Amino acid sequence: MTTTLPKNAKIVNRYLGIKLDGKPTELYRASAHLIVNGGKRLRPYLVIKSCQMLGGSMQKAMPAAAAIEMIHNFTLVHDDIMDNDEMRHGVPTVHTRFGTPLAILAGDVLFSKAFETVSIKNVPNQKISSRLVSRLAHACVDVCEGQVLDIKMAEGKKIPTKSEYIAMIEKKTSALFEVSCAMGAICAGAKQSDITNLASFGRNLGVSFQITDDFIGVLGDPKVTKKPVGNDLREGKKSLPILMAIRKANPKSRRRILKVFGNSRAAKKDIISAVNVMRSLDIEEDVRRVALSYAEKAKRSLSLYSGPAKKEMITLLDFVVTRSL
Amino acid sequence: MTTTLPKNAKIVNRYLGIKLDGKPTELYRASAHLIVNGGKRLRPYLVIKSCQMLGGSMQKAMPAAAAIEMIHNFTLVHDDIMDNDEMRHGVPTVHTRFGTPLAILAGDVLFSKAFETVSIKNVPNQKISSRLVSRLAHACVDVCEGQVLDIKMAEGKKIPTKSEYIAMIEKKTSALFEVSCAMGAICAGAKQSDITNLASFGRNLGVSFQITDDFIGVLGDPKVTKKPVGNDLREGKKSLPILMAIRKANPKSRRRILKVFGNSRAAKKDIISAVNVMRSLDIEEDVRRVALSYAEKAKRSLSLYSGPAKKEMITLLDFVVTRSL
Repeated sequence: MTTTLPKNAKIVNRYLGIKLDGKPTELYRASAHLIVNGGKRLRPYLVIKSCQMLGGSMQKAMPAAAAIEMIHNFTLVHDDIMDNDEMRHGVPTVHTRFGTPLAILAGDVLFSKAFETVSIKNVPNQKISSRLVSRLAHACVDVCEGQVLDIKMAEGKKIPTKSEYIAMIEKKTSALFEVSCAMGAICAGAKQSDITNLASFGRNLGVSFQITDDFIGVLGDPKVTKKPVGNDLREGKKSLPILMAIRKANPKSRRRILKVFGNSRAAKKDIISAVNVMRSLDIEEDVRRVALSYAEKAKRSLSLYSGPAKKEMITLLDFVVTRSL
Repeated sequence: MTTTLPKNAKIVNRYLGIKLDGKPTELYRASAHLIVNGGKRLRPYLVIKSCQMLGGSMQKAMPAAAAIEMIHNFTLVHDDIMDNDEMRHGVPTVHTRFGTPLAILAGDVLFSKAFETVSIKNVPNQKISSRLVSRLAHACVDVCEGQVLDIKMAEGKKIPTKSEYIAMIEKKTSALFEVSCAMGAICAGAKQSDITNLASFGRNLGVSFQITDDFIGVLGDPKVTKKPVGNDLREGKKSLPILMAIRKANPKSRRRILKVFGNSRAAKKDIISAVNVMRSLDIEEDVRRVALSYAEKAKRSLSLYSGPAKKEMITLLDFVVTRSL
């Protein structure tokens, strides 16, 4: 992908570095741990590009761009504790490196700093600040609710329907993409209809992002993903490709999928056989089609606008749905 | 204490009940668990009384009053996870009752809802909302930093000085009392100097509150506290009475204190002997004197004001420093 993403990421990183430099140093080192060790800054990029597309500058977007990256990282830090995950982006997770108490507080301080960053101290205009806070707080509520829906879905015996699944990822994943674009519009001083259009772009991009992620998790090329073949199948993740396959399969094929689903001791040949069943059911095509339909919806939300920032947002959207990693 | 505290608490509880009624029900039940099972609503009371003292209504103060109680509970929920505490207010802690993942999310959603509650959606005035958010976010940062200072102090071998200790509790405990009073003033539409005075009242009240808490934890009457004699001594808490006693004692007395300090297997007779050493050193008087000096500072911050709300705030302050539970 040839965009200005890496260039923008550098500027965002510099701003984040200043905001997350405090004492006690352990707390701020823990809160910045994942940020300094990776991440593409997709959400800040969407804030910046949305703002620029509507006539605002990168500088105007910067507090909101930094805030959304802090919120994203806050969710990652707490998620890793909940999931007992030891590694992320090739480095130990925050609780593995710093211990659970400090990791909980690192997440909490990222959250607090995010709201401080979009408060009136950093944003020169009361109207903009109060709109940012209102949107951001609502998105955070959505993420928490979405994570509980996800936990319930994972723990329940039932295979969710496609619409139950989409409702969950709209909260869990899309909420932060939606608020990124909405905040970019707010930073540009845009009118309500523009904010709504940008929010819609972000939300639909978020859904197609997550569906593509899910697709890669099950049917991705192990050489590219560096994860075992059919990884999410073995882990028992009730993601879209799997639930679509289970619904589409005939009883015999369904048994072959369910044999390895959530079975951490499944033999490699059985996993490959289940993946092949999914391929023969054209699940790749089905899932890509759903992701594309959301990407198309996202594109339509930008039909009123033009210019280089719009072009970059569309490039990002195309990348999100076609990527294989 | 004969104040309007219980009456106000009821009104706050009703408002909180509405704000914390959502889906998924498990998440909101977990987030309201400690609230429905106890607490005096001290912080909301300070928001309301500060607002009333400066000419505002209870209704105007309600969003900020609810928000501070959510933030206070968010810190309790996450604290209990960090400390592995199983009981609070005589009921199982949130992670004990609902599991750690849901408890982390319950804390996070309380945090998110608090900011939503003081956002422009609930507060009719942009200026007031943006001031509330800015203050509240800063207080949350302080609490996180204070908790890390507390962890470091507990883990370190060094006995902290009185001023190191006060600096820690100013962040860990006082920040929420300070912001409660400041937010009350903001809700009344008060001018900056009034906000500063109220913040100072809350901060100093908070310090005297924590010092009194510490005193009760070590030298409190077991019949009243329902905790074993010298409880915090056996638990090794580096609280003000203990660090003052260690510094004041002669080598022989210091050895008797250090023999049981942080020693979970200490014999009851040794604990009683250490408590008696502290009594003979007049630690009660010393600690009460420090708490009173902060209470006096707090009172001076209100010297410009008058009326029934001020009277109730002073009654609360007097209660805070003289209580034995």
